[in-house]
Amino acid sequence: MEVYGDLQSGNCFKVKLLLSLLKVEHDWIHVNILNGESRTERFLSRFPNGKIPAVELDDGRFLCESNAILGYFAEDSALLPKDTYYRAKVYEWLFFEQYSHEPYIAVARFIQKYLGMPEERKEEYASLKKGGHQALQLMDNQLANTHYLVGETLTIADISLYAYTHVAEEGGFDLTGYPHIQRWCHQIQSMDGYLGMS
Amino acid sequence: MEVYGDLQSGNCFKVKLLLSLLKVEHDWIHVNILNGESRTERFLSRFPNGKIPAVELDDGRFLCESNAILGYFAEDSALLPKDTYYRAKVYEWLFFEQYSHEPYIAVARFIQKYLGMPEERKEEYASLKKGGHQALQLMDNQLANTHYLVGETLTIADISLYAYTHVAEEGGFDLTGYPHIQRWCHQIQSMDGYLGMS
Repeated sequence: MEVYGDLQSGNCFKVKLLLSLLKVEHDWIHVNILNGESRTERFLSRFPNGKIPAVELDDGRFLCESNAILGYFAEDSALLPKDTYYRAKVYEWLFFEQYSHEPYIAVARFIQKYLGMPEERKEEYASLKKGGHQALQLMDNQLANTHYLVGETLTIADISLYAYTHVAEEGGFDLTGYPHIQRWCHQIQSMDGYLGMS
Repeated sequence: MEVYGDLQSGNCFKVKLLLSLLKVEHDWIHVNILNGESRTERFLSRFPNGKIPAVELDDGRFLCESNAILGYFAEDSALLPKDTYYRAKVYEWLFFEQYSHEPYIAVARFIQKYLGMPEERKEEYASLKKGGHQALQLMDNQLANTHYLVGETLTIADISLYAYTHVAEEGGFDLTGYPHIQRWCHQIQSMDGYLGMS
């Protein structure tokens, strides 16, 4: 199995972290999107959306969308509940991550860390603060009530949200105001099979 | 069961359409977000993200995020495959919908139809064209190869993408260049249990 990605990207890192926790063997193929490596004819013929992470399974079939990939590998593991309601709660967080978290926290980090905060994106950067803090506050409130985002055990909801949250400070989001998020990050970092972002 | 939503919203409509196709009885509670009805203390105590659609189940538990709600109701139906790979392909499209389709096509429709194209959002409106057409082209390419987005039968991937796609022209996206999308819309509209948007 081949996994295409860049470990600087939280969307890719979350897949790497899950595979490590589940001890799934794979070849990691580094893709530099800034060089256009995800827009080549070969890449697009396999992954028409031209995005990473992306997976080629041993039988030659393809998967993309980071959170769909998490769901694929977590199926039949403790990281994705069998119960229909709790399974839906996990997907609730995964959709929240893509719509209400990543577009603020990951984009702010990209502008600050990778683009070096160019003048023409400063206004956009500032506009991301409110939505990012709303997302973090919602997570912190949940984590004040439960050990993990969906109940008392780790699920792929935690792995997905952890990816960009634990480096949110690289996008200017101070986590000191979110004590429950901090506690939760430490829990995840102490797990067997945990690995860091790069 | 109570479902909170506004049928003018594609995210809400997709839930209504699924419940109709599956013949699931429910009370539909209209929520006017422009009046702040999704930001009241009572609403936020149940649905902290303050978004519709949102569901209160008969046992008093809550669900939100439109595509997670689709997954909940489609579980154990033909609309969500049992096979792990095809299930992941359905979720691939659901995440694509929230990240690469809705932020362009639904937002353009909102600016044009509901805000009446105010001067200060014209630049943003124009900026949404490219991403929206990329999303439509990707769907059209898939639908040139398969009857539905994931294979030969309807899944919640189709229901989710159909919601904002079939009214994309209300956001200025001409569908005449996407013949396979048009054929697919007609297929869905001819289904037993189909209902329109409002």
